[in-house]
Parts: sequence; structure tokens; C-alpha cells
Amino acid sequence: MKDNIDLMKLMQQNFARLSKGQKLIAEYIMENYDKAAFMTAAKLGETVGVSESTVVRFADTLGYNGYRELQNELQEVIKNKLTTVQRISLVDDYSNKENLLKKVFKKDMSNINKTIDEIDYEIFQEAVNEILNSEKVYVLGLRSSSFLAGYLGFYLNFILENVTVVTAGPSDIFEQLLKVTNKDIVIGISYPRYSTRTLEALNYVKRKGCKVIGITDSLISPAAQISDITLLASSNMVSFVDSLVAPMSLINALVIAIGMEKKDDITKYFESLEDIWKKHSVYNSNNKNKGNIKNR
Amino acid sequence: MKDNIDLMKLMQQNFARLSKGQKLIAEYIMENYDKAAFMTAAKLGETVGVSESTVVRFADTLGYNGYRELQNELQEVIKNKLTTVQRISLVDDYSNKENLLKKVFKKDMSNINKTIDEIDYEIFQEAVNEILNSEKVYVLGLRSSSFLAGYLGFYLNFILENVTVVTAGPSDIFEQLLKVTNKDIVIGISYPRYSTRTLEALNYVKRKGCKVIGITDSLISPAAQISDITLLASSNMVSFVDSLVAPMSLINALVIAIGMEKKDDITKYFESLEDIWKKHSVYNSNNKNKGNIKNR
Amino acid sequence: MKDNIDLMKLMQQNFARLSKGQKLIAEYIMENYDKAAFMTAAKLGETVGVSESTVVRFADTLGYNGYRELQNELQEVIKNKLTTVQRISLVDDYSNKENLLKKVFKKDMSNINKTIDEIDYEIFQEAVNEILNSEKVYVLGLRSSSFLAGYLGFYLNFILENVTVVTAGPSDIFEQLLKVTNKDIVIGISYPRYSTRTLEALNYVKRKGCKVIGITDSLISPAAQISDITLLASSNMVSFVDSLVAPMSLINALVIAIGMEKKDDITKYFESLEDIWKKHSVYNSNNKNKGNIKNR
Amino acid sequence: MKDNIDLMKLMQQNFARLSKGQKLIAEYIMENYDKAAFMTAAKLGETVGVSESTVVRFADTLGYNGYRELQNELQEVIKNKLTTVQRISLVDDYSNKENLLKKVFKKDMSNINKTIDEIDYEIFQEAVNEILNSEKVYVLGLRSSSFLAGYLGFYLNFILENVTVVTAGPSDIFEQLLKVTNKDIVIGISYPRYSTRTLEALNYVKRKGCKVIGITDSLISPAAQISDITLLASSNMVSFVDSLVAPMSLINALVIAIGMEKKDDITKYFESLEDIWKKHSVYNSNNKNKGNIKNR
Repeated sequence: MKDNIDLMKLMQQNFARLSKGQKLIAEYIMENYDKAAFMTAAKLGETVGVSESTVVRFADTLGYNGYRELQNELQEVIKNKLTTVQRISLVDDYSNKENLLKKVFKKDMSNINKTIDEIDYEIFQEAVNEILNSEKVYVLGLRSSSFLAGYLGFYLNFILENVTVVTAGPSDIFEQLLKVTNKDIVIGISYPRYSTRTLEALNYVKRKGCKVIGITDSLISPAAQISDITLLASSNMVSFVDSLVAPMSLINALVIAIGMEKKDDITKYFESLEDIWKKHSVYNSNNKNKGNIKNR
Repeated sequence: MKDNIDLMKLMQQNFARLSKGQKLIAEYIMENYDKAAFMTAAKLGETVGVSESTVVRFADTLGYNGYRELQNELQEVIKNKLTTVQRISLVDDYSNKENLLKKVFKKDMSNINKTIDEIDYEIFQEAVNEILNSEKVYVLGLRSSSFLAGYLGFYLNFILENVTVVTAGPSDIFEQLLKVTNKDIVIGISYPRYSTRTLEALNYVKRKGCKVIGITDSLISPAAQISDITLLASSNMVSFVDSLVAPMSLINALVIAIGMEKKDDITKYFESLEDIWKKHSVYNSNNKNKGNIKNR
Repeated sequence: MKDNIDLMKLMQQNFARLSKGQKLIAEYIMENYDKAAFMTAAKLGETVGVSESTVVRFADTLGYNGYRELQNELQEVIKNKLTTVQRISLVDDYSNKENLLKKVFKKDMSNINKTIDEIDYEIFQEAVNEILNSEKVYVLGLRSSSFLAGYLGFYLNFILENVTVVTAGPSDIFEQLLKVTNKDIVIGISYPRYSTRTLEALNYVKRKGCKVIGITDSLISPAAQISDITLLASSNMVSFVDSLVAPMSLINALVIAIGMEKKDDITKYFESLEDIWKKHSVYNSNNKNKGNIKNR
Repeated sequence: MKDNIDLMKLMQQNFARLSKGQKLIAEYIMENYDKAAFMTAAKLGETVGVSESTVVRFADTLGYNGYRELQNELQEVIKNKLTTVQRISLVDDYSNKENLLKKVFKKDMSNINKTIDEIDYEIFQEAVNEILNSEKVYVLGLRSSSFLAGYLGFYLNFILENVTVVTAGPSDIFEQLLKVTNKDIVIGISYPRYSTRTLEALNYVKRKGCKVIGITDSLISPAAQISDITLLASSNMVSFVDSLVAPMSLINALVIAIGMEKKDDITKYFESLEDIWKKHSVYNSNNKNKGNIKNR
């Protein structure tokens, strides 16, 4: 199935052409997705009053490879809504620690893979162009997303003239966005459980006529609904941690794509930086290592 | 070949049992790896004065699947030494942008995969134990690694009593580490081009008898040489960006592993946090989303 | 009059022994201090229905040197309640800029003078002792007070083992205070217009049994009402700026007083810091200046 | 005497018209000011080989009210050169703590008073104009001056479009200043013991043709020598603390003076901020306090 259209939207878009029994399933899921996510096909059919095979065909009709795939996606939606305490208790399932850790790494990998599959390079290029053509670029992220915002700002600062990282500090984030105009762009990074303040701030700049690029986990995330351009990469929620590995990979790609358009400028900047770095011994020099290698 | 032993060490360890011709190759590489990295097997043989097939056997003897694999590793070593300006010019090779971006994502994935393969779970568990048993935990990272240090500190703070993120600020990092004792642990995050100040600080705390856990990219990194315990995850250097995706995945695994040992404590903490978060509307509430979904 | 008892408290404490007419004045002021602050003695008498001389005697009874002094204090109370926009418009009064600036400086001086007069050295020493005897010291300040909190933390870190500056950042301030116990102390810095979040956080740690030292502007400030020990220094509100000069002077005195009790420790620390500073050329060296002076 | 001309300059400027004996004194002081600062007039005369009254007349000739005043100034020069360890030991002199603290407060006051006396309102207005007319304003401060830089930036952000605080962080300060042009202005805050990095950065932007406003303690400070416009306010060095009270008072005056020129803009900004602050309960509301006062 096409990955970048999520279940809720799929059901809405295909609602008219569903059979009567399938419509009952769709309505039940939309209203009770937290229960449906943990039902077998048989149980879901029984609850709604249709046969198990109707449930299976329902999944096929929407383009899933079986009911199991539909259920997996439903469970992802749920996870976004769980409190951290509920998520910590989920980890009990794993028989041993090594397996759990491998699973964490593998989920991070598969999230990047999903990003590769889902990415629409035209939309991606549109984001690059908007960033290059705006007067000022604000990068907004709070809580764990603040580290991604800082990381993105760190690199954009090498390329662009007017980059500001907006995050919690002495000044309120609204104060930091006070002078945003419709010539600027705000890149908002928002991951489950979606900081309220981030969403309020994105709505605030939208009202000022400013374009918003959202970096978030799904098209139904509240940040996606505010954004003009949405770039998707999933987070990996394990216990109380939200692994932001795939979003970081997306951010790297974004920085590299922007950098390629400004290659001559940044080469010039880095040439002068290399001089400064060398003068102030910012980086470990080759010579020391060479010496090390020779010491055999 | 075993991935966690790098080429330079391999050559040193196997030096005695190499043939005379192979010894010439090894010596040449150790002293001229920056040139050797870009030579074909034939050219390298010619330069050293041995046959091409001697070069190929040399790679086999060290456990590589062919000379190409040895050369790839050599090029990685080189990359660590390149200036940023040199790295920007390397990107020219790619025929189109989309391919480049896919390559960035795929390299991030393969770096995580390499982390899974290389990780020694006993050493990993040793790191977890040291962190749990130390009086204070300092997390040190500068420049782009400062975001990983902040991210790691953000989560460790939920679990442990005395966590301090050490990074550039009003106080010098030495001042921030002034009261480190041999009961504390310092987690140092250090990636190419290895910040000099990070290495100096790690040496400083070592002299004070403090244990060091290094999160770095290879066993020959200068940080690994200072560390008591080294956790490996590769960075992905593209143009002027150092993608820290695999290190972030490693950090997530580390936080989760520590959290599992303190499960009851953190459940209690998060219960009280959920109350505070709810009271102050820190997170977007479920209700709003539900409403959204219903609006079809 | 004794400066550290403010007008509102004075009226409450002396209410019983006021004459009937004076009681009318007191009640009017308590309910309409925003109007009363800008009335002449004659007008206030007229409004309340007493003679001008009753108003004047009222000021005397409470210990003021005339009605003018009482009115000045009332206007200070008002200022704390004004919005920033209202305060900006107040600046119109000044005939020229130079006079305004001199007035800013002089008010800063007189605020320090007021601090000297009002300070109770026994309470001050009690604060010093509490800080020295607590397990951990948290310094809390938001918005413009965050710079004072950072400044206080910067210096306390040289003297004490466990100092944490709590201010807006990736982690919520409640999360930063999650592990506060009754063996710790929180120093809260709170100035008009008193950040709500600071007050909530101080109440939160109080409920955990933790002692609070408040650095604030008056005994009726909401922060003073939460604090176990209150240290007073006035802010100087001009236009949209809250000059925190007197509080900074108070903080210096506090740091010096604590430092004197730990003199041997800090001498030792600074000796090792001097070595580090010298090695890394943190400070401009004498030699360069000497050279400069000689170049006549 | 004119306060803003310091002793070293005075001696240089008046050298030609000094008597032969006075020239000997001047030369001795220039080369041995660290010793001279602690000599009585008699001892200094003896050392140089002139009479005590020659030393006294020397002070008069340079415009001091007696030798004592000259010596005080010499001791201030010395203090700037002392290591922190040396300064800690100086505090021994005070007989009791209360006197020491009063002395700290009074020195802070007298430093503000000195600022009032020394300030040249034309130069001050020139600084205001430069800031208003520059494209971007960078505020640079490291170590304890970073809090003043943050404080100045916090308020300038309300008034001006492009304000950046430059201080230690993930990016080097040179990287943060990489795009400075000759249309921008850098406000550098530099106090004894003068951070080397601040001075290097000010020199760096000067070479780029950018104007520098220095906020520092004397005209012979290394920062003053780099600055196009110098604003003076003394720090108060007691033990290991540098009280930056007078500089903060100067910064307040600077912000207010700039704000007065942009009064309509900032009134508009604060009107919209008041709405946001109210909506998000950023500040403690009047009602709660009113309630408090009524509860008698």
C-alpha cells in the first residue's frame, strides 16, 4: 500500500465504495481505535457483527497486505496516545535485554527505511526551495525535539544568513517569534506526544501569514495539519524514550540538499573556518594520530 | 572479517606472520594511508615493488573479502582526516540529488546495522552497571556532539539522581568537571574531527581517577584510547555534515537498558510527571485529535 | 520608618489603634490603592470624607515622614501591577533623555542603598548557613531573572558540590525539580511581574518539604509568601525594563559571604583552575598589557 | 581629576612637563606598578631616590587629591592583574563579615556613581544611533559577562529586528560571527580578567570592517583598545567574584535610551505580547494579589 496515506485518511477517502459490512468496521475503528488495535480479525468481526472474512477483505480493500498489517498501523496510532507510564509497562514483553536492544536498533533502521520509501522528492525539493528563498529561517523544537532543532540550526547556520533556533529559554517562544513575517519560514519539529506549546506557536506564525514546514511523524499528526509542507520520518517509541533517529536522518538529508545549492558559498565559509579552527586547535590534528599509528 | 578490529590494528597484530612482500605493503600503508586509499591493487603493488597478486593476498591474509573491502576501510580512515572543505568537494560525484539523499539514508541505516553487528553486549552491560553504580554521571559533548549529550542527559535525568550535561557555556568545561572524583563517571561523546577540548577534558578527569565511557566511532579514535569502556557507533560523513544517526540509536539503547534496571523508580517519577504535564497542558490531549478524526 | 515593613502590612497591623477617620482612609487605600496612589492628601480626604489634616496625621501615625512618602510607596506598589504597555507610556514625563538616564542610574543606586538599610544580617547569615548545610542547591529563575540565576549558579559552582541552575530549557522546570528532597534548598529569584511558573515551582518544592530562600523585591511579593527565608532587593522598573541591579548586588554579597566560609576549599580549587586557565590562555595575560604600557 | 583618563595615560601625556625627580617616579611606576601600588609616599620616594614631598607634588601635578588617591587608582590597576587566588587572600583584611558585605554594596553604588560622572552623553547617543542604524546587532560576552550579554539581548530583542547573542555554545563564537559585515555592529562586553576569546573575536570582526561598541571597565582595557565606541562602567572585584552591577546599570540605561527612540514600535509589540502573556498566564495576575491584600 502507499505508505504515506494513513489508515484514518484511507478509511475516509474510500468510505463511499466500502460494502455495508465494511462501513460498520470503518466506523467502529474510527470511534474505538484504542480497542480495535488489540482485537484479532475474528474478535473485531464479532464485535461489529460481521464475519472474520469481511474484516480480512476490508484490510485488502484499503490496500494492506492482510489484517495484520492494518493492525500494526493501528497500534502505532495508539502508541502516540499512550502516557509514558503506560508505555513503560509495555516493555515487559521482551524475554531478554539483548533482544530488546536489537529490536530498538532494528526499529530505528526500519523507520529510516520507511522514510526512504515514503519521501516525495518533489515535496522535499519544495521545502528546500522555500528555505532558500525565505528571508529568515526559524527552527522550532521543544523538549526532546529541541536537540534536533539545535542540530538543524547548527548546520543551517553555516549555509544561510538568518537562522534562528527557537526553543525554551529566557524569552518565551512567542517572543522569539514576535517579528516573524510572511517572508520568513518556520520549520517546526513536533513528535508524539506533541508539545502543546509547539502547536500553539505554529498556529501563531500561520496567522501572521508565515509558511510552516513541519517535520513530524504522520500526516494525521496535529503538526502536519498546521504545516504547508510536511516532511515525514517516524519516531520509535520504546518505554519512556522517543527515539528520534529517523527524523535526524531526514534532517541530515535536508541540510545536505540545501548545502548542495549553496556549494560555492559554504566552501568559502569553511575555508575561512578551517583557518580559525587550525589557529585555535579546535580539532584534533592529524599529526598526533599519525604518531600514534607509528608507535607499534 | 570481524568489524570491530580496524585495519591499522590488524596490520600491527599480524605483522610478524606476514610475508616479506606483505610487510612492505603494511609499512607503506601505515605511513601513506592517505595515498594508498586511492590506489588500485596494481598501483599499490607497483609503488611498493611487489606484484598485484601479493596485494590481493595481503587483503585476504588480514581477513578482508578482497582488496576492495580493505580499500573501503582505508577510505573511511581518510575521511576522518579530511578538512570540511575537502569533504564538500567530494560530493560532486553524485549524478543526481535524489540518489545522493537515498545514499545518505542508506548509509545511516548501514551504520546502525554495523552497530548491531559490532556491539558486545557484555561491554554494553558493563557500561550500564558503571553508570548505575557511580555517584554522579557527567555527559560530555561539544559541537555537534553537544546535541547528543543534551539528548542523553535529558533522558538520564528521569532515571538517575545526579546527572550533569557538560558542554560549552558560561563556565569552561574544566570548571564544570572541577569536582569530579573517582566515584563518578564521565560519558564522553566524541566524533570526527574529534574536538580537541573534549579529548583534553577526558584526559583531565582520567588523571583525577574518574572512569570514562567513550561513545565514539572506532577503536582507533583518540577518544577510545582514553576511555575505560568504549561503545561504538559510526558517524556518516557527507559533505560538511556529520550524521550522528547511529550514535543516537546507540544512545537510545543505552537509556532504555538503564531504564529497565530502574523500572519501578521511573514509573513512580512519570506518574507524578503525568499529573504535572496534564495540569499544565504540556502535551496535546487525545480529545482534540479524536474530534479531528471524527470531522469527516 | 522601618523600611522592611510595607504599607499594606502597616495598615493591617495598626488598624485597631487608628482613629475612626483614619480607618476610613486605610480601608479606602486597601481597596483602591491604584487610585489613591495618584491623589493629593486633600483629594484623598475629600474622597473618603475626612479632612486633609486627617490624611496627613494618618501618614504620621504609620511612621512616614509626611504624606508624600506614603504616596511614593503606594506608587511603587502600583508599578508592580502595571502592564508593560502602561509602563512604557509613563516615560513620557521626562523632559530630556540625559535626565532620564541619570534618573535610571540614581534609582539603581538608591535601590542598593535601600538594600543596605533593610538587610537583616541575622537572616542573611541564616540563608548562608542553610545553603552551606543543604545537600543540593537549586537556583531557580525564569525570564529576566534567569540571568541572575545563571550568574548566582556560575559562582556557587566554584564553592559548592551540588549546584543546579533551574531555568527554561528542554526539560520542564518541574522535571528539573523532580528529585528535590527535604535535605535540599531552592533559591528562587522572582521579580515583578512575577512569573507564574516560578511561583508554581516554588509551591511544588515546598510541598515536597524543601526549604525555599526567596530573592525578591518586597515582603508582600507572592514569592516572599512562599519562602522560608526572604532576602530583599528592589528592582527598578523603567519603561519596559526591570533593572535587576540591586538584586545583583545582593547576589554578589551572598556569594562572597558563602565563599568566606569555604575559603580554604575555593583557594585550592582556584589554584588548579589558574593552571588550566593559563594552559588554555582563557584570560588575557599580563605580559601583553605590560608591553602596551611601555609603548609610549 | 578627570576620571576617564587613567594614571598610565596621564603620566605619558604629562611626561614632558614633569620635573626631573617626577620623571623618575613616573618611570618607576610604569615599570613596577605592582610594587609601587603598595608603597607609602615616603617609601616610594626612598626607592626612586627623591623626597617624600616630591612624590606628593607628583600626585598633585597629575591632578590627584593627594598621593592616597593616586595610590588607590594604582591598586585598581593591580587588581585587574591579580589571579583569583591572590584576590581571595586579600579579603582577610576585613574585621567582620557585616562590614565586608556593606563594603561590597557601597562599592557597587560608588561604581554606578562613577559611571554617572564619567559618562559622555554624546558618545552614549552615538552608540545608540549606531545600534539603531546597523543591519544586525551582535551582543558578545563570555564567562560571567555572558549573563550581561544575555540580559542585553533579551531586551534588545523586543526593540530591534536582528539581534543575536554570541556566547559559548555548540557553535564556536567565530562561527557565530562568520557572516558579520560592515553594516552590522558588535557590542562586546569584556571585564577583567578579560577573556582572551572575546578579544580575539572583537579583533576578528574589526578585520571584517564591522564597528565595535565596547562595554568595559577602563580606557586602557584591551577591549577599549579594539572598540570604536567605548562605554565605561567599573566592575567591583571582591575575592573571586567580579560584581557586574555598574555594567548592568549601564546596560539598562542603554536599553531604555534605544527603546525611547522606538517607542511606538515597542508599544505595539508589547500590546500583542500582553495578549499572549495573559492567554498563557505567564505572569501572576493582579486579582490574586488583590485577594491577598483584602484577606486581613
